[in-house]
Amino acid sequence: MRSVTCSTPTNIAVIKYWGKDNVALNTPLNSSVSVTLNQDQLKTVTSVLASKDFPADRIWLNGAEQNIQNKRIQVVLKEVRRLATSNAVDAHGRAIAKADWDLYKLHIVSINTFPTAAGLASSAAGYACLVAALVELYAAEEEYEGQFSAIARQGSGSACRSLHGGFVRWDKGVKADGTDSLAIQIADDKHWPELEAIICVVNDKEKDTSSTDGMNTSKDTSELLGFRAREVVHKRLAAIEAAYKAKDFETFGKITMMDSNQFHATCLDTYPPIFYLNEISRSIIHLVHKYNHHAGAIQAAYTFDAGPNAVIFVEKKHTKDVLALLSHYFDSTTEPLEVRGPVDTTNLPHVDPTLLASIKAQPTPGALKMLYHTTVHTFV
Amino acid sequence: MRSVTCSTPTNIAVIKYWGKDNVALNTPLNSSVSVTLNQDQLKTVTSVLASKDFPADRIWLNGAEQNIQNKRIQVVLKEVRRLATSNAVDAHGRAIAKADWDLYKLHIVSINTFPTAAGLASSAAGYACLVAALVELYAAEEEYEGQFSAIARQGSGSACRSLHGGFVRWDKGVKADGTDSLAIQIADDKHWPELEAIICVVNDKEKDTSSTDGMNTSKDTSELLGFRAREVVHKRLAAIEAAYKAKDFETFGKITMMDSNQFHATCLDTYPPIFYLNEISRSIIHLVHKYNHHAGAIQAAYTFDAGPNAVIFVEKKHTKDVLALLSHYFDSTTEPLEVRGPVDTTNLPHVDPTLLASIKAQPTPGALKMLYHTTVHTFV
Repeated sequence: MRSVTCSTPTNIAVIKYWGKDNVALNTPLNSSVSVTLNQDQLKTVTSVLASKDFPADRIWLNGAEQNIQNKRIQVVLKEVRRLATSNAVDAHGRAIAKADWDLYKLHIVSINTFPTAAGLASSAAGYACLVAALVELYAAEEEYEGQFSAIARQGSGSACRSLHGGFVRWDKGVKADGTDSLAIQIADDKHWPELEAIICVVNDKEKDTSSTDGMNTSKDTSELLGFRAREVVHKRLAAIEAAYKAKDFETFGKITMMDSNQFHATCLDTYPPIFYLNEISRSIIHLVHKYNHHAGAIQAAYTFDAGPNAVIFVEKKHTKDVLALLSHYFDSTTEPLEVRGPVDTTNLPHVDPTLLASIKAQPTPGALKMLYHTTVHTFV
Repeated sequence: MRSVTCSTPTNIAVIKYWGKDNVALNTPLNSSVSVTLNQDQLKTVTSVLASKDFPADRIWLNGAEQNIQNKRIQVVLKEVRRLATSNAVDAHGRAIAKADWDLYKLHIVSINTFPTAAGLASSAAGYACLVAALVELYAAEEEYEGQFSAIARQGSGSACRSLHGGFVRWDKGVKADGTDSLAIQIADDKHWPELEAIICVVNDKEKDTSSTDGMNTSKDTSELLGFRAREVVHKRLAAIEAAYKAKDFETFGKITMMDSNQFHATCLDTYPPIFYLNEISRSIIHLVHKYNHHAGAIQAAYTFDAGPNAVIFVEKKHTKDVLALLSHYFDSTTEPLEVRGPVDTTNLPHVDPTLLASIKAQPTPGALKMLYHTTVHTFV
């Protein structure tokens, strides 16, 4: 037998992917870019055990067995197996010939360290990790650069972006077979060490409308989505990539917020409409705009995927200010909001009373379950 | 002295107006269409008293004095005064010569029978009524057909639509001076007598973002709004006008809902984003879609203006079904939801349990303040 274990980070899109161009190939209506987060706080860990004694392939996600016949799992298994070499060795150090892999069945065990299917890109990290683990298991080799990324894309579109650290663009691609629809690194994880993220976990229930169902309905019914993909995204991609390279938070933050809002606008333009943001999401949006207005500059920028949880990007020098503001509004009546991550929250600054006075929202103690504080710069 | 009193109905847009083409002329980015509602439930009543003894023009709205120097009030006053004739008579039956009107000052008293500035088109009915009252006061005469409509437009864009009953289109117009940006009747108030409306008053507080501020920000920042105005609206106008003429509720209702959602999508695409819908608005949207799905046809259609209140269009044969559904979800714990209007609510039908089972939302007793039930067919 042979076993491998891999871990993979999650990524948060700042120019959103929504809608498939080719459903079978899982290619997108438009290119997208994302920030890959530090694995210390949020990651998927996947172990694969291969044995001739197993009667069949099986897969568990967070302890619950999933249907291995799932189309997207099958396409990933098939594509990586095709690229297997004879370079892998079993537990005794003996090489496993490529032809012999047919005799081995797999047990795949995957765990997320964060809420699944709540708009925190769990499927992105999950499929990226599945591909990484299978590649190592089979000692697979790419036929062209980026092929593993293209395979991850066929599992879950945004998964291709989790195979790189830093700032990553998933190119829509132009080829009919989808082989150039893959992720490339725009800036590495060391480029902007001051960039951090605060993740507000509003609700850890699974979302009502899955991303796959939602984006298919949006593509069929939202004229605004088609316009966005054709006419808006390419300009934003160019502008936000330049801003990231220049570490220009003002521009990066503004485009991030505008693109999150435009994505949710296309969900609302879907028929029937899709709502991922809830009242707490909207109060976070309000707080961030008031905070920036009070600062006279964009110092915090929210983005929401297909769920109510906010990711707030911030530079390190402002992290504690934003945490203090969030604590003011969301600490429960009995204890402070839990913050998981490297930041020291024992001495958060006071929130400026003039800022508080400008905010119409009332505190809603306990509306957030917890926060993650994480960074971009220590991608493993 | 001379006094006149007029009343004017409100109108509910089903293809929305949002964004001004020319701010000074108050012309719109796109044409819009609306349904004018029966005045028995919702109307504005305006009295104008003209006297040589008044030292200055003054205006009261719902008992509170407003600033008469308001630009939009001034433009309406000036434009109608310009069209005055010498045909009006004073309280003693003596003609008032056009030249003598300069000696008279006005006291204008206006009352809405429904919540002001809560997305129920109060400014539309208000400015339409101001124009109608001034026209009568001054015995004003149009220089071209639709001129009074164009004057009302300069008060509040959608006001021009309240000068007709039935189904009304406000043409964007093509002339640089805005004189052809006015409302025309597409179908009169007798055309579709079965069409009724249920108005859900979610919240009678004034809205956070005024329509004027909101649409200016949207025009400046939302690319989706520009696309909608250029590329989407004209197709929907043609389709919904044909549907109204054919009394095709399925098509009328679907376009009405899609256009409401697209309007709110452009608000969300605005920077900073504008939210007019709240959790109760969204639960009404959810109920209507579930109701239609259960019926296997579109029998109810919601639309929301710049506020959280829903207007649900329905044909008479389904009015009680929809009222029963709303009562199930929103009756307070101590008493049934108040319904103002001609419908008899003493024997509402039972809601089908399979419909209730399909609805995820929990009842939120008391979340609605009240309902209006109203019709289209008895325009006075």
